Amino acid sequence: MASASSAAIFGTAAASDGCSRRVFATTNVQVRASRTSPAFLRTSRAIKTYASCSNSSVVNAALITEASAKVIDGKATAKEIRGEIAAEISKMKESSGVVPGLAVILVGERKDSATYVRNKKKACESVGIKSYEVHLAEDCSEQEVLKHISVFNDDPTVNGILVQLPLPSHMNEQNILNAVCIEKDVDGFSPLNIGRLAMRDREPLFVPFTPKGCIELLHRYGVPIKGKRAVVIGRSNIVGMPATLLLQREDATVTVVHSRTKNPEAITREADIVITAVGQPNMVRGSWIKPGAVVIDVGINPVEDTSCSRGYQLVGDVCYEEASKIASAITPVPGGVGPMTIAMLLSNTLTAAKRAYNLE
Amino acid sequence: MASASSAAIFGTAAASDGCSRRVFATTNVQVRASRTSPAFLRTSRAIKTYASCSNSSVVNAALITEASAKVIDGKATAKEIRGEIAAEISKMKESSGVVPGLAVILVGERKDSATYVRNKKKACESVGIKSYEVHLAEDCSEQEVLKHISVFNDDPTVNGILVQLPLPSHMNEQNILNAVCIEKDVDGFSPLNIGRLAMRDREPLFVPFTPKGCIELLHRYGVPIKGKRAVVIGRSNIVGMPATLLLQREDATVTVVHSRTKNPEAITREADIVITAVGQPNMVRGSWIKPGAVVIDVGINPVEDTSCSRGYQLVGDVCYEEASKIASAITPVPGGVGPMTIAMLLSNTLTAAKRAYNLE
Repeated sequence: MASASSAAIFGTAAASDGCSRRVFATTNVQVRASRTSPAFLRTSRAIKTYASCSNSSVVNAALITEASAKVIDGKATAKEIRGEIAAEISKMKESSGVVPGLAVILVGERKDSATYVRNKKKACESVGIKSYEVHLAEDCSEQEVLKHISVFNDDPTVNGILVQLPLPSHMNEQNILNAVCIEKDVDGFSPLNIGRLAMRDREPLFVPFTPKGCIELLHRYGVPIKGKRAVVIGRSNIVGMPATLLLQREDATVTVVHSRTKNPEAITREADIVITAVGQPNMVRGSWIKPGAVVIDVGINPVEDTSCSRGYQLVGDVCYEEASKIASAITPVPGGVGPMTIAMLLSNTLTAAKRAYNLE
Repeated sequence: MASASSAAIFGTAAASDGCSRRVFATTNVQVRASRTSPAFLRTSRAIKTYASCSNSSVVNAALITEASAKVIDGKATAKEIRGEIAAEISKMKESSGVVPGLAVILVGERKDSATYVRNKKKACESVGIKSYEVHLAEDCSEQEVLKHISVFNDDPTVNGILVQLPLPSHMNEQNILNAVCIEKDVDGFSPLNIGRLAMRDREPLFVPFTPKGCIELLHRYGVPIKGKRAVVIGRSNIVGMPATLLLQREDATVTVVHSRTKNPEAITREADIVITAVGQPNMVRGSWIKPGAVVIDVGINPVEDTSCSRGYQLVGDVCYEEASKIASAITPVPGGVGPMTIAMLLSNTLTAAKRAYNLE
């Protein structure tokens, strides 16, 4: 299973020569931020020189053996979760005559943003969430965006509101995000919600999608968290930091590794659970992983690949080829955390609706 | 200097026989919670059987040598800070005709709470902060407390509001604390403020007193934080968790050690900076400390001592006698973090006033 998935991840070309020996030049292809995508980690980061995996002297002898890690299949898990959500919404509709509603506000003509919004809409429809969309012109005023947020705040059929980021530069992002009422702020990034996540006797209204997806994968794959050593690599507001808080809530002993950390390799090697969210292709090598550890790779990094029709392939922060031979379980990229993010958006929207309609 | 302080901490009897070989029975003397005291960590915990320091087989050979750690003198540092605050308030009064104001609400007749409130009042007066106090009967209504908070919220001469905890059991603590407007919530424990502390691009309005005092001691003693390994032992909302967030903001690589952590000793021994806030007398032994580490001990634990007139002495979470021979610098208990807490309350009240009067 692991080998098959490994091949699937790297594509046909990669299956034959792994991720070694390929070094690509940086191009100008931009990867844009989305508020509900791990790609947010890499705002405006260009496709990079490919950090090769296997031709390093640090590679451990164990790497010569076959891949042994169980593949944590985010795509299949997300599908399963979407099925559960759809069933719950169907029952909700039957018993109460209501369905959850999600509103997305898109400003401007960015293709990537339009794609994200389209995908969210599709995902909503697939589980029975009613989706609302407002598409405003690039040069519209902040006031206009705020007006739409206010309408959605007051609309009882809308349970979640998402503003697709980035917004045009003439707008104050914080003003706009703060305007979404906390009961409908399903992405869970408001400071009040993050504070509740950090505090031991409080409950957050919503857990941010991507870290929630990481923990959900650990749960569904039966990975124990309590009392385990965990390392989170990266400390972004949208993944690393809330993932740390979530692991701490589940009684892991957590260390946060970041750009100022000395000897991140040795620290990471102590962890039973590793979550990476840095946006550095193949940064985490096999030698960073403790044998038997569980690896959750949030990074989705585009690296140039002229053999692909689109000119690039997606790889994680972890050198999958190496780490899958050391870890006991690992998420592939793509097909790991990525699909979970949108499933968690649907889950949070359902939670918001149940709360609004007193169906909890 | 270290030896002298060590003797001072343990008193005359302790100076002659250290903290070894004395094991006391648990008594019924209760240590009560205060919102602005590290004692909060130990709500209703009785004076304990004294965890002896020196008669353990794990004690390292290095412990036989003399104490070498620099004593981080919280009492002197707090005095210095109070002097700086007094000077600033004096200038403020001269140039703008205003002084900061702090209101404290005390409900009931608990002696410990009355003492804390009296000490805060004295400290305010000593630096020129105007203090306001409301003392309500144990059986007053929640509504009555809320009414006083509302009056203080509206009073422009009051810049900070503290509700002395614990409140009588018939009151909803969260309701009452939430009623304090965030600009005057100087203790910084509101979820919104904690969220801002956790987020990288946000600034908290106030940093909670005790963790702020810990970091201030590190700063004033020139202890580098950036890139250092730090361990915070304890994850309370009022000390451990915000201390972790503060160390992370200063680019330390932080691990949180707690009751579910396996092998806390080995993890702690990796740290360049150790902050303990667990309320367990002498839990952290010399063998837990990396040679040269800096130790900040937030614990203030009463242990029975019949040779003292009050029947107990105060000791930290760290076995000072052992750790002071391994660490490069250490806070004593008492006289370490304790005096800093009230100095940071004064500092936060001054910050609130400067903000309210646009004097920043």
